[in-house]
Amino acid sequence: MNVVLIRDIFRQPDKYINQTIKVDGWVRTVRASKAFGFIELNDGTFFPSLQVVFEESLSNFKDIAKLITGSAIIVEGVLVESPGAKQPFELKAQNIRIEGLSAQDYPLQKKRHSFEFLRTIAHLRPRTNTFSAVFRVRSVVAYAIHKFFQERGFVYVHTPIITGSDAEGAGEMFRVTTLGFDQPPRDGQGKVDFSKDFFGKETNLTVSGQLNVESYCMAFNKVYTFGPTFRAENSNTARHAAEFWMIEPEIAFADLGDNMKLAEEMMKFIIGYVMDTAPEEMNFFNSFMDKSLFSRLENVLQSQFGHITYTDAINELQKSGEKFDYPVEWGQDLQTEHERFLSEKIFAKPVFVTDYPKEIKAFYMRMNEDGRTVAAMDLLAPEVGEIIGGSQREERLDCLVKRMDELGLNQDEYQWYLDIRRYGSARHAGFGLGFERLIMYLTGMTNIRDVISFPRTPKNAEF
Amino acid sequence: MNVVLIRDIFRQPDKYINQTIKVDGWVRTVRASKAFGFIELNDGTFFPSLQVVFEESLSNFKDIAKLITGSAIIVEGVLVESPGAKQPFELKAQNIRIEGLSAQDYPLQKKRHSFEFLRTIAHLRPRTNTFSAVFRVRSVVAYAIHKFFQERGFVYVHTPIITGSDAEGAGEMFRVTTLGFDQPPRDGQGKVDFSKDFFGKETNLTVSGQLNVESYCMAFNKVYTFGPTFRAENSNTARHAAEFWMIEPEIAFADLGDNMKLAEEMMKFIIGYVMDTAPEEMNFFNSFMDKSLFSRLENVLQSQFGHITYTDAINELQKSGEKFDYPVEWGQDLQTEHERFLSEKIFAKPVFVTDYPKEIKAFYMRMNEDGRTVAAMDLLAPEVGEIIGGSQREERLDCLVKRMDELGLNQDEYQWYLDIRRYGSARHAGFGLGFERLIMYLTGMTNIRDVISFPRTPKNAEF
Repeated sequence: MNVVLIRDIFRQPDKYINQTIKVDGWVRTVRASKAFGFIELNDGTFFPSLQVVFEESLSNFKDIAKLITGSAIIVEGVLVESPGAKQPFELKAQNIRIEGLSAQDYPLQKKRHSFEFLRTIAHLRPRTNTFSAVFRVRSVVAYAIHKFFQERGFVYVHTPIITGSDAEGAGEMFRVTTLGFDQPPRDGQGKVDFSKDFFGKETNLTVSGQLNVESYCMAFNKVYTFGPTFRAENSNTARHAAEFWMIEPEIAFADLGDNMKLAEEMMKFIIGYVMDTAPEEMNFFNSFMDKSLFSRLENVLQSQFGHITYTDAINELQKSGEKFDYPVEWGQDLQTEHERFLSEKIFAKPVFVTDYPKEIKAFYMRMNEDGRTVAAMDLLAPEVGEIIGGSQREERLDCLVKRMDELGLNQDEYQWYLDIRRYGSARHAGFGLGFERLIMYLTGMTNIRDVISFPRTPKNAEF
Repeated sequence: MNVVLIRDIFRQPDKYINQTIKVDGWVRTVRASKAFGFIELNDGTFFPSLQVVFEESLSNFKDIAKLITGSAIIVEGVLVESPGAKQPFELKAQNIRIEGLSAQDYPLQKKRHSFEFLRTIAHLRPRTNTFSAVFRVRSVVAYAIHKFFQERGFVYVHTPIITGSDAEGAGEMFRVTTLGFDQPPRDGQGKVDFSKDFFGKETNLTVSGQLNVESYCMAFNKVYTFGPTFRAENSNTARHAAEFWMIEPEIAFADLGDNMKLAEEMMKFIIGYVMDTAPEEMNFFNSFMDKSLFSRLENVLQSQFGHITYTDAINELQKSGEKFDYPVEWGQDLQTEHERFLSEKIFAKPVFVTDYPKEIKAFYMRMNEDGRTVAAMDLLAPEVGEIIGGSQREERLDCLVKRMDELGLNQDEYQWYLDIRRYGSARHAGFGLGFERLIMYLTGMTNIRDVISFPRTPKNAEF
C-alpha cells in the first residue's frame, strides 16, 4: 500500500474518506486510556497534525499507548469522518508499526520552549510548530521568487561566491584561503605571498553579486541572482547574520522608475503567493507571532507604494515636529526611526525614497543632473524600515570613471566592469533584497537567527 | 510605447504583425547598402535575433549603417511578414535611437572565437550564441529542479555555506577566517588560537549540505538543498571546479529503491522541461556541440533505468573480455571507463549500480546484511559515467556509532547528527547531483569552465 501524505489528506479529504490508507510520521502527542487512545501524527508535509485513534484491539496497544513524543511510526487504518471534532476526520488505526522510538530525554516536550533554547538544538527545532512554519514559508517564498522572475523571462545567474575583488566595499569580508598560518609563503619583502594561495591571489567571500550580474544583464536584458552573501561584521543584533541569502535582479534599458515598478510588483507577488500556498502557516503567524501581520501584508497588497525624494523626505521629517533620537539633516543617512516614521506616519504604506546624496551611496549609482544626488531608491516598509535597496546604475563611462577617481577606487581592478560601459552600454537598474529580512517581514519573526536553518553569527558556527 | 520583448514576438507573432512596436537590444550584425540595410538585433530574451530593416529615409541612416557590433539601440517600427525569408517576419524601422555605441575594439567580432579566449572575457561571453544558450539553459534547469521538488511537496533548505565541521571528509576544504597572517593570536602552546577567529573556532567552506539537511528531513519528510559547495582540490581538469552548485534531496521513510525512483523521475522531468522550455537553445546544442545529444536525451526519457549491484557489475566487466586501463577488481572503485562500458555497452541506457563495498563509501551509508557492502547507489549515464551519487543512510544508532568507531571519527563532533538517530529515527535516503555536470550533460559542453558564469579553479578567481 502506498503511503499517503498528510498534506494530501487535508487538501483532498473526499478522496480518502472511508478508505484504508497508510501514513507515516512522527508522534507529537499521545493520550491513552485503558481502552483507546489518540495520537497527533505529523509527517512533515503539512502544518496541522492528523489525529489517529487506536484501540486496545491492536496487538501492540500497550507499546503504542506509552509512545514517547518524537517517535516515528507507520499507521494503516481507515480515514473516518469525525463530525463536531477539531478536525472533520481522523484515522482509525488497524495497525501501527514503530519505525523508530524516541529516547526518554527527547528535548522537545509538550511545554513551550524559548527561542533561545531552541537555537541550541537547531537540528531538532524544525520539528516544532513555529519552526516548521518558518522553514516551510522560507521554502515557499524562495520558490515564489524564482517563479516571479522566471515567468517574466529573467535569467537566473549564479554569481561567484569566492571573489578576488572587494566589490563595492560594501562591508567587511571573510578571507578564503588554503595557506597555513604557520610559516605562510612570503615574498622578497617579507609579505605573505598570496600568489602561492589556491587562487594565486587574495580571495574573499562575496558581499554582493551585483557587479557580476550587471555584465549578464547586458547580455540577457533581465537577470537575477539568488544566493548566499557574507559580512564579517561583528554585529550581534537581531537583524544581522554573517551568512545570508540575497536576491538581486537587474534590468536593462530601464531607469529608476522601472526598477521601482519591478520591486513593487515583486513584493505583491510574493505576498500573494505565500498567502495562497501556506495559509495554515500564515494563520499561525498572524495568531501567535504578530497579530497585525495580515493587516500589514494586506496594506502592502492593496496600496500603490508611495514615492518621495530623499530631499523632500528630509523636509517632511524636519517639519513633522517629531522628536527623533538621531538628527534629521540633509546629507545624513536615514535611521530606522526616520524610515519607520515616513512609512508609518507620513505615508501609512510602503514608500520608495529616491535620489539620495551621492556621499552616502555606492560609486556605481547614476549621478543625477544636480550633481549632488544619485538615482538610488530604498523601499521602506511600515514596522521594519528599509527592506529593499537599489539604484539606476551609472551607464556613462566618463561619469563612472570620474566618480571612481573621486573616491580613489583602483580602476585596474574594475576594467571588466568598465567594459560593460565601453561596449554597447545601456541604461540599467537593479536592487537587492535580503532574503532573511523578507522572511522576518512575512512571518513576524523578530530574530534573524530564527529564520536561518543553522545561523552563522559572531562566535557561532555550530552544526 | 511599451517595449516588446523579442521572445514575445517569436512566441506570438500574430499578436504583433502589422503593428507599430518598440524593441530594444544589441546589434549582432549590420549589413547596409546605399539605400537600405539589415540589423540582426538580439535583446537577450530569446536565442534567435530579430531582423530589422532600415532605409535611407531614416534621418540617421548613415550612423546606423556603420553601427559597430555590440551597440545598444532602440527601434520603433512595424512588424511585417517576410515570406520566404529565414524568419517569417521582420521589423521595418521607422526610428532607430542609439542607446550606447560599442567601441571599435569590441572583442566579439563576427568570426568564431575559441572557448579558451572567451574564458578570458567571461563578462562578455554571454553575448555570444553559445554562451547565451548555455546560461539560459542553466537558468531554465535550475528552475526545473525547484519546480520538480516543490510540486512534490519538498521543502527547500538553505544549509550553511560556512561550516565548523568537515562533514564527511569528502574533500579538501577552504578555510574561512578573519585572522591576519601576520602575528595571528596564539594559545599557550604557541598554536594559532582559533577561539579568537570570527566564529570562535576553525571554519571552512562546505563540501556538502547532506548532514545538515538530514536533520530537516526528519522534520519535513521530503527536503532538498540547492546551493554552492566547494573543493580545494588542485585538479586542473575539464570536470573540476573549486566552486560549484549541488542539489541534494533527502526523503524519509524511504529506502534505496525509493531513492532510485526519485532520481529517475527527476532526471526525466528535467530533460522534458528543458526540451520544452528552451527548444531553440537545445537545437543549437544538438546541431553544433554534440550531434548525438537528442538521441542520448531521448534514450534517457524513453528507457527504464537499469539496476545492477556492484558485485554483479564487477562480474559483468570481468567476463566482458574488454581491455581496461584500470583493473577490474572487487573492492576497487569503478573508473569512468568501467562506468561508461556498463551504461553504454552492457545496458545501453542509464543504470544504477548499487551496494558498493563499505570501504570505498562514506561512513553514513547504511550497512547491508552481508556486513561487506552498503546501500549506496551511483547513477551512470552513457557518454559521461557517474552523474548522481547517493545512498540509504544508516538510521540505526548502534550501527552508525560502530561504523564511526571503525573509521576513527570523533563522535563528539557528530552528537547532533547522532541525535537524529536517537529521537524518532526513520529510514531515509538521498543523493547528490552536481549541477554543472548536469548542465554539461544536457548541453554537450565539455569543459566545466564553460557552464559557470565566472569559474573558480586553481590560480583563477578573476572578475
